Amino acid sequence: IIARAAAGLFSSGLLAGKRVVITAGPTREALDPVRYISNHSSGKMGYALARAAVDAGAQTILVSGPVELATPDHVNRIDVQSADDMLAQCLALVADCDIFIACAAVADYRPGTISTEKIKKGPEKISLELVRNPDIVAAVAASEHSPFTIGFAAETNDLLAYASSKMERKGLDMIVANDVSDPAIGFNSDHNAATVLWPGGSRVLEEASKATIARDIIRLIADRVSLIRD
Amino acid sequence: IIARAAAGLFSSGLLAGKRVVITAGPTREALDPVRYISNHSSGKMGYALARAAVDAGAQTILVSGPVELATPDHVNRIDVQSADDMLAQCLALVADCDIFIACAAVADYRPGTISTEKIKKGPEKISLELVRNPDIVAAVAASEHSPFTIGFAAETNDLLAYASSKMERKGLDMIVANDVSDPAIGFNSDHNAATVLWPGGSRVLEEASKATIARDIIRLIADRVSLIRD
Repeated sequence: IIARAAAGLFSSGLLAGKRVVITAGPTREALDPVRYISNHSSGKMGYALARAAVDAGAQTILVSGPVELATPDHVNRIDVQSADDMLAQCLALVADCDIFIACAAVADYRPGTISTEKIKKGPEKISLELVRNPDIVAAVAASEHSPFTIGFAAETNDLLAYASSKMERKGLDMIVANDVSDPAIGFNSDHNAATVLWPGGSRVLEEASKATIARDIIRLIADRVSLIRD
Repeated sequence: IIARAAAGLFSSGLLAGKRVVITAGPTREALDPVRYISNHSSGKMGYALARAAVDAGAQTILVSGPVELATPDHVNRIDVQSADDMLAQCLALVADCDIFIACAAVADYRPGTISTEKIKKGPEKISLELVRNPDIVAAVAASEHSPFTIGFAAETNDLLAYASSKMERKGLDMIVANDVSDPAIGFNSDHNAATVLWPGGSRVLEEASKATIARDIIRLIADRVSLIRD
């Protein structure tokens, strides 16, 4: 009952009537029918953001890579595997979307070719050709009717410098920077800490549960959206 | 009660007093602190074998890659990430082991170097140098006091030919061949079907639950062990 009351308190309708698309989890880039390249994203942060968006009154769609998480109540979840899949889904959704949060840990590269049969063990050393994946958040930010677009920067070093330059280069409205070198707030943790940057401002979010961080981020987004779009 | 009675029936002590080591799940080969190469192994078959080995009265150790499965009762589980980790654990256990079942889907290759920092997105195409991983089941079969050693062959084509040559080349006592191109019995399925080969014989195990297939395999192992070692 206390949790429900707290949710009610937050459910101030900060995002009432808004349509929010959130990407979450890793992508998996196939090498052959059994092997893939992926990363340690658990999807917990993206799923927490989806919960917070619903609590704030938004119509919420999760475009999710492969994760071991239950779909939050009232969230429409679309499962994808590769970055190409995720891009196609996001571009299909973006025309009808007010806020786009790119929380997924999209693989930067994928194998240049996908073998249709399992690759046999061969020589002692092999060279794998990788090609750049599409940049989903940049593609969304550059689309004709681009929504308010939030990116994430997970780095192990020079966090704020990388995040700030990423925001500018990709034309984002906001970026959430977090340091994944600290295991206490890393990919599989239930906690996080972040610095949120936007053109002309920033806010440090001290270590807290991902649910709390998610609500703080949703509040900051709602503030910025009302300032910019009203 | 029926399940317990069935377990009791099987618990005929086929492997009473035997020490069994089973590898299960995928391995993860790190590229950098956040990225890795892995495969779609769920670990379900290896965990089912561990359950069947315990039911047959064996002291059972699971050397497990990262999976989303609960540890079966009475099983001693050792978690590992990479093929190198798995090899080290297996070689440490093998001197004191009667039966070794290599059910894990060990990555054939790993990145030649592991970056200590997250690799930045760079040029449009990059080339990733991969080096062969150690062959764990062959190393165990070739060790001084080698246990009765069972390998697995998961293939998408020419199944029995590959499996038979793998058994001979690696000096195995038995190999379990299954066709991973069929999604009904693939990596994440609860069902399996297999052909078990040993020098001079074979047995087809028709599609059934992984629990049933596991019991059939444990019976075949017990038969061969008593023939060869008694």
